[in-house]
Amino acid sequence: MEDTDDVVLYRPIGLVHTPWTSVEEMPIQPSRAGEVEGAVEIFAPFVEALADLDGFSHVVLVTHLHRSRPWRPRVVPFLDTVERGLFATRSPSRPNPIGLSVVELVAVDGARLTVRGVDLLDGTPLLDLKPYVGEFDERPGARFGWLEEARARDARSDDRFS
Amino acid sequence: MEDTDDVVLYRPIGLVHTPWTSVEEMPIQPSRAGEVEGAVEIFAPFVEALADLDGFSHVVLVTHLHRSRPWRPRVVPFLDTVERGLFATRSPSRPNPIGLSVVELVAVDGARLTVRGVDLLDGTPLLDLKPYVGEFDERPGARFGWLEEARARDARSDDRFS
Repeated sequence: MEDTDDVVLYRPIGLVHTPWTSVEEMPIQPSRAGEVEGAVEIFAPFVEALADLDGFSHVVLVTHLHRSRPWRPRVVPFLDTVERGLFATRSPSRPNPIGLSVVELVAVDGARLTVRGVDLLDGTPLLDLKPYVGEFDERPGARFGWLEEARARDARSDDRFS
Repeated sequence: MEDTDDVVLYRPIGLVHTPWTSVEEMPIQPSRAGEVEGAVEIFAPFVEALADLDGFSHVVLVTHLHRSRPWRPRVVPFLDTVERGLFATRSPSRPNPIGLSVVELVAVDGARLTVRGVDLLDGTPLLDLKPYVGEFDERPGARFGWLEEARARDARSDDRFS
């Protein structure tokens, strides 16, 4: 059943506020965003659902990457020099531009979360918010395909003066 | 800006095929789904974008949980006996019922992925497919709030005859 007439419709539950107003100045992924703090504003109908979240050290922001370019089946990713299949990359140029960002949860104050390590543009719509849970989200010993090869090359070039 | 008139519209890029046809018989999350195999069917316009994916041991399935119930701000989660804020749980009853499942990638054959450890109903629409990458998706030492307390209780009750 290739039911491509079916569409899925979502409404944002909030907005992400960050220092980044252009893609050029933005870090590539949360773990590279380091100590940069941002805020997540949750719209009024959803604030009650934040109860108990403050016990978690990290949350997953599921966002609509509203300023991504049209999708392409192959892209040259950050960290590599050759084209890769889009679904083997974390490029935002996806058929459905959904972003996943695991960020540190610093504080919950009413409708506002303070988070650390954000790789999102200011004003990015938030679609969902999940607690980060090791047994669901972590897979120790996983292999990372072309990314491991790219990192090995990086490491070699970093050693070139040693 | 609470621009709740903005809607986000996505079209499925594929379908997930699993042995599970009802919520009752289904495991709660992928890590509990163990060795159960399923298949992901990618629609024709998106197959080229699967290139290079086979080097990754795990992928993240971003799905539309099409049979979830209407959202509620508080739910009694699996593993607990009291109500928790929805966003502090992985319950499917979310304002935007988006699922995240980290599954093992067993094989890529044309438009079909074989995956292991699926916690999704047969026929679940796939919205996005991402490679699972440690530095983006893993946060060693994270804290898991009420879930840790619930697990501690579980462990105690398991020790009751020791």
